[in-house]
Amino acid sequence: MSALVRDERHSSECSTEALARFVAASRWEDAAASARHAVVRALLNFLGTALGGSQDEAIARATAVLAPLSGRPNAGVIGRRERLDSLNAAFLNAASGNVFDYDDTHYPTVIHPTSPVAPPLLALAETRPIPGKDLLHALLLGIEVACRLGNAVTPGHYVRGWHITSTCGAVGAAAASARLLGLDSERTVWALSHGANQACGLVENLGAMAKSVSVGNAARNGLFSALLAAEGFTASTKGLEGPRGFIAVLGVEPDRPALLAGLGERWEAERNMLKPYPSGVVLHPVIDACLELHGRCADLIDRVVEIRVRGNPLLRQRADRPRPQGGREAAVSAQHSVAVCLLDGAAGLAQYTDSRVNDPFVHRLAAKVRVEEDAAIPIDAARVHIAFDDSPEQTCEVDHATGSLARPLSDSQLESKVRELARWRGWQGSVERLLETVWQLERAPDSGVIMRLLCG
Amino acid sequence: MSALVRDERHSSECSTEALARFVAASRWEDAAASARHAVVRALLNFLGTALGGSQDEAIARATAVLAPLSGRPNAGVIGRRERLDSLNAAFLNAASGNVFDYDDTHYPTVIHPTSPVAPPLLALAETRPIPGKDLLHALLLGIEVACRLGNAVTPGHYVRGWHITSTCGAVGAAAASARLLGLDSERTVWALSHGANQACGLVENLGAMAKSVSVGNAARNGLFSALLAAEGFTASTKGLEGPRGFIAVLGVEPDRPALLAGLGERWEAERNMLKPYPSGVVLHPVIDACLELHGRCADLIDRVVEIRVRGNPLLRQRADRPRPQGGREAAVSAQHSVAVCLLDGAAGLAQYTDSRVNDPFVHRLAAKVRVEEDAAIPIDAARVHIAFDDSPEQTCEVDHATGSLARPLSDSQLESKVRELARWRGWQGSVERLLETVWQLERAPDSGVIMRLLCG
Repeated sequence: MSALVRDERHSSECSTEALARFVAASRWEDAAASARHAVVRALLNFLGTALGGSQDEAIARATAVLAPLSGRPNAGVIGRRERLDSLNAAFLNAASGNVFDYDDTHYPTVIHPTSPVAPPLLALAETRPIPGKDLLHALLLGIEVACRLGNAVTPGHYVRGWHITSTCGAVGAAAASARLLGLDSERTVWALSHGANQACGLVENLGAMAKSVSVGNAARNGLFSALLAAEGFTASTKGLEGPRGFIAVLGVEPDRPALLAGLGERWEAERNMLKPYPSGVVLHPVIDACLELHGRCADLIDRVVEIRVRGNPLLRQRADRPRPQGGREAAVSAQHSVAVCLLDGAAGLAQYTDSRVNDPFVHRLAAKVRVEEDAAIPIDAARVHIAFDDSPEQTCEVDHATGSLARPLSDSQLESKVRELARWRGWQGSVERLLETVWQLERAPDSGVIMRLLCG
Repeated sequence: MSALVRDERHSSECSTEALARFVAASRWEDAAASARHAVVRALLNFLGTALGGSQDEAIARATAVLAPLSGRPNAGVIGRRERLDSLNAAFLNAASGNVFDYDDTHYPTVIHPTSPVAPPLLALAETRPIPGKDLLHALLLGIEVACRLGNAVTPGHYVRGWHITSTCGAVGAAAASARLLGLDSERTVWALSHGANQACGLVENLGAMAKSVSVGNAARNGLFSALLAAEGFTASTKGLEGPRGFIAVLGVEPDRPALLAGLGERWEAERNMLKPYPSGVVLHPVIDACLELHGRCADLIDRVVEIRVRGNPLLRQRADRPRPQGGREAAVSAQHSVAVCLLDGAAGLAQYTDSRVNDPFVHRLAAKVRVEEDAAIPIDAARVHIAFDDSPEQTCEVDHATGSLARPLSDSQLESKVRELARWRGWQGSVERLLETVWQLERAPDSGVIMRLLCG
């Protein structure tokens, strides 16, 4: 294809307006049943991770800053007593949902879409009665927009240093909020462009509490974007595809046609994975392998000479972190994850606490881990080789990690995960009632019931 | 110099920590008297532009969105009756200050530093008594940080599509707020990295109301950054210079040593210009020339065949906009500016209203304007040639625009500008008292007096 023809295709196929028309006109019934179920699962998973994350130090400190500045207490903070205005509550709920990196993960882009997208919807559902179906539909569309924008800029965007969950999440949150507010396609365009205009978040800050700020902002600013557009506050009509719009400015060798390819025919929610472990998804095949190796050679750990981890280049880009400085950074450290799996035979929340990170036994083992990349290995696969000083090498190969698209968590595994998360900091609510409410949400007349359960 | 040596220099000379140490340790008395006077002028100019902009439609709509969500009414909105929480008030005041593009302009980067940097300080000064000297000092330091970061990423950053006032402004606002809150250098580092993490704003949105959102966010998020850091909310220690920090991610062929070169020896506030016209600063030599040409050939306007405007490449990059869609975009349109100057003999606020933009006489003349670039022409110079159908060509050459570093506005011209801005939407306060208060601010025990005057 000549450059000219490609450029023409781009200009017709990559358009904020076309995306906004889709968001404004979409019908819940037109989405595949599998996509509709996927979005219910994503919401449930998010509510669990937000409950589990709600007592984290970062959330407590952000709450301490925002609560005195907050407006009318219209919206709850999941797992906490504070009630804040809608924008600030959306910020904190998104931060809670993502703080452990235990939230859902869109396979092609490694975006965590639900943490930025769901909180504005939950906040809106506290100010007016919104049928459960409408909230789920808006969430489905927000995930769609965030992930499609991610598809258009992956992989260069993250490699350059953009925290893709935050950047694309802001646009997804804007789309979802615009839909729930019933904006027409012209105002939805503005909402998307406002989201693009507020997209931010640097990978440099992962590992510090600041990660939670950009994820929180994505939710807050997404909602703000739609509220502005609803008020007639204009923005560019080409905020995504324009010469100085999101894709050109934050993209690196973008794939523009990916923004709209197959729109309405396939759903990104179906490529969205739920994690079995509270760590970066690129680590999950490595963790599966190490849990298996723990079973085989737990009593040989003192004799380990070297551990070689081979995986997709993304594994090394995102998780080659020999000495994480705390639980948060450990969740994206291959070295830490390998060490705790081999030592504890587990990779749950307890393995990613600051105290576990500071354990000298973990350090010693982590120092023996080497991360190697191999472009032929898919993201959900990995190989781990352990060399011992006086025993034969042990190897484990994982083709599809638990929780991957090929081996998704079952609904019942998801329920167990949500139960674990609800227990983690001693939530006093009824998790069984929460599970039942979310599974039935599509038929609920008022989705405000969720926040009443979580913050009651 | 070899690449290796340069890289080493970079790593030692470009550091968030060194910048934060400077901000935390700086003393007002150590700054040159000329820099101290420049910052008083910048503040006065900002207060004028915020008064003039405070009734703009964008400000009214943003206020309508934010007021119902705002917390304790601790902070005023310049020129308006609403009182909001500090974060939201900072947002609106920054937006007002910049909405006409009539605020101060840092010559090397074309950043408008005071609109994002001053509002957080004014909001803080409403919650506790802050000596005028301390507020001015924090403003000086915030301008310093915003503009130095701009120096490090100019010109590639804006050319790529970043609204540099918003992006660098967020970091400058964080620095100024951190200083006014008395943060130590460790927490100032976090504040700067939080600012970097929240830097956003796309050139694609200039010309729409959305421009005001990124400028407002710069102020809001700068203050939020410092409040987070004060609460012990951590961020990267290398938010500016790290491999995935601001300069690497938002920069294009950055000049890293520029971040700290001559720090404390020379002040960016001294390279900050105050505008005589409410339009993009790159247009000012063109406007000077056209006002002169209006005097010479007002009665020949009907016979104009072509108008050629030659200027620095920045002129074409930022202001070659043949058909602006409203007053806001007209302020960065060479075509519109040339047309109104030649027709009206003026380039004040009245020339950049929507109704003036929709005038068919303006359209007809604007359609004859061609913008040409010439790298040999400095930013503050321009040449305008007018060809007529039956008269000899007229030419005007301007070496240094009014308001440029070589021909700065006098204090008394600045006072006239503030008076015009205060009158523009019929502000009822006493502008003479405002002028006197700001000129005396360095010796005032409580800088809260400013906002009491402006919002009383």
